[in-house]
Amino acid sequence: MTDADRIAAYWESAERRDWETFGSLLADEVVYRMPQTGETISGKGPYLRFNIDYPAGDWQITVERILVDGSQATSWITMTVDGEALSAITFFVLGPSGLIRDIVDFWPQPYAAPDRGGDHVAD
Amino acid sequence: MTDADRIAAYWESAERRDWETFGSLLADEVVYRMPQTGETISGKGPYLRFNIDYPAGDWQITVERILVDGSQATSWITMTVDGEALSAITFFVLGPSGLIRDIVDFWPQPYAAPDRGGDHVAD
Repeated sequence: MTDADRIAAYWESAERRDWETFGSLLADEVVYRMPQTGETISGKGPYLRFNIDYPAGDWQITVERILVDGSQATSWITMTVDGEALSAITFFVLGPSGLIRDIVDFWPQPYAAPDRGGDHVAD
Repeated sequence: MTDADRIAAYWESAERRDWETFGSLLADEVVYRMPQTGETISGKGPYLRFNIDYPAGDWQITVERILVDGSQATSWITMTVDGEALSAITFFVLGPSGLIRDIVDFWPQPYAAPDRGGDHVAD
């Protein structure tokens, strides 16, 4: 299994709520961070509980891109929750064993385009 | 120059407002998208004008991570504008010549952590 396969399996197992497979991809000491809220979750057990609990509702995942570079990986996914599409970008660091040991998640929200005053931006 | 060097040069030249170098990294037909606002900018000239104009204010860039995988690359930067730190995540596609031809930018904003009702999330 390549690291790209592991990141794909991370999202596939999350979408299936297959927490056994999902957990098998994580190092025991995994650290998960959300810079937008300042939250950090440390350890496989707490991080599994977090994923089981959030988000509530019926959600599906579409993987847009996965990049792997050395021990690092990034994914861009679209998560659809109760009909609303959200983008998530995630930065991973994998250990020598291939287990994921560091995760940083970004959830950029839609916002209104500012008035850019020109004719060079189009929808 | 490797593709990782090109992405580093993209941000270094943007920080220096060195638009000649910045432009030399772009394909003429570059397309820039911001999924959060739905905006698209097509072509090197319009995209250069956009970068010269935005954001207003005094800004510095710190590169957090650059990943390259085949013809794709991703960066995570911190941009400090008038003392406020913003994260930006950018997905690039480079052409065979090494010129950047596709850019997708995300600007995730801070938000208050929801009440997660547990003891497993700490600041």
